[in-house]
Amino acid sequence: MIAIEQIPTTPPPDLDKKQARKETKKRAKRIGELQRILYAQRKYSLLIILQGMDASGKDGAVRNVFRYCTHDGVEVHAFKKPTEQEFAHDFLWRIHKRVPAKGHIAIFNRSHYEDILIQRVHGWIDEARLQSRMRAINAFEQLLQEDNDTIVLKFFLHISKAQQEIELRQRIEQPDKHWKHNANDWKEREYWDQYMQAYQDAINWSHIPWTIVPVDKRWYRDYVISKKVLDTLESLPLQWPPLPPDE
Amino acid sequence: MIAIEQIPTTPPPDLDKKQARKETKKRAKRIGELQRILYAQRKYSLLIILQGMDASGKDGAVRNVFRYCTHDGVEVHAFKKPTEQEFAHDFLWRIHKRVPAKGHIAIFNRSHYEDILIQRVHGWIDEARLQSRMRAINAFEQLLQEDNDTIVLKFFLHISKAQQEIELRQRIEQPDKHWKHNANDWKEREYWDQYMQAYQDAINWSHIPWTIVPVDKRWYRDYVISKKVLDTLESLPLQWPPLPPDE
Repeated sequence: MIAIEQIPTTPPPDLDKKQARKETKKRAKRIGELQRILYAQRKYSLLIILQGMDASGKDGAVRNVFRYCTHDGVEVHAFKKPTEQEFAHDFLWRIHKRVPAKGHIAIFNRSHYEDILIQRVHGWIDEARLQSRMRAINAFEQLLQEDNDTIVLKFFLHISKAQQEIELRQRIEQPDKHWKHNANDWKEREYWDQYMQAYQDAINWSHIPWTIVPVDKRWYRDYVISKKVLDTLESLPLQWPPLPPDE
Repeated sequence: MIAIEQIPTTPPPDLDKKQARKETKKRAKRIGELQRILYAQRKYSLLIILQGMDASGKDGAVRNVFRYCTHDGVEVHAFKKPTEQEFAHDFLWRIHKRVPAKGHIAIFNRSHYEDILIQRVHGWIDEARLQSRMRAINAFEQLLQEDNDTIVLKFFLHISKAQQEIELRQRIEQPDKHWKHNANDWKEREYWDQYMQAYQDAINWSHIPWTIVPVDKRWYRDYVISKKVLDTLESLPLQWPPLPPDE
């Protein structure tokens, strides 16, 4: 059982920032190399799920970890408030459409976990629905892994409440961040403790394990995520496929 | 009127390759910077259409020109042989679904033009259908530009028949290119002259002008495409949007 509040949001004090950045860049390059083989081989796929409070740095993580990957093999899907049509379906309907095909990496910026996070925090679902959704999520992720060789990697971007305030304030103060400002983020912030509880439960209930990423320092966020992604790719039997037979 | 056979497939002899590569890289970086503003502003979008014979280097162009763009703002769609469901609709049905939303860059690796190229070359459509499709394409592209501020950029990757043979042969000889080999490409190559005629007509009929890109040297391909894309972005009144009003 993981207790979120016991996990730091900052890097280990003995890790050198400059060294870590260099290492992250090396990993990102290697991820780019392996992604091309993954794409050519069309056997495995990667589903990367990024969850975290507002301003926990989900966009930046995508930018830095996958910067050497090709655009045709990597898709990012940001799941926002469901549309009317999406609300008229089960909560996994819009998600299922976006899972990666063989050879692809799909990155979910928020995901089906919102349906047991924000919806729970605001009391829009009851306990029975919550349990039912958690079961559905576990079965769904298992399906992807077993039926389509999709590796599911889940990251909880763990930010401190103090650091979130700094980040949200920058959006008001810096002209190139204005577009990210959303007054509603400040309202959601008032539910901080309930969100932490909901995240903790989601992480503990979930069969496929999560990586908890301390993100108060962005360089450490990239360091941790790039390591997990690279280790995963290195563990797969990736190889350039043979010459296809002529029809 | 453009006569394709009069347009060279090689770079101008006075252009220095090393200098051109340096310039391309500089442009690609600047494209990346502007793409972030495009994305944040959510007013304009770019539709990049890449057409060309097999092995004319469409994938590589995407990789090199858009390498500094973020994954969340750039989507690549490769249009292959239509599925049964797609065939059961008009030829623009599957295309329309993939056009870029405001703020996005969508890159079409092949496109609706296939429906007046391969289909014409093999005689799968008659002259009346060809004319009707060309009218539909012009109206469709105009719709995107006028109704959604989508800038449509079309590139014909112009390769010589001799260079295509070299490229196709490499797919057989190099292990990291085997996955691109398709025996059918060699069959399509037999229709070279008909394809050139079909391309020429498509280019001349089309209201929104094409850029014809000499691609026998890949570095010159990237040089030409990056210039057009950058010039287009520079011509737009891109700016970081103001702070949104609090609801």
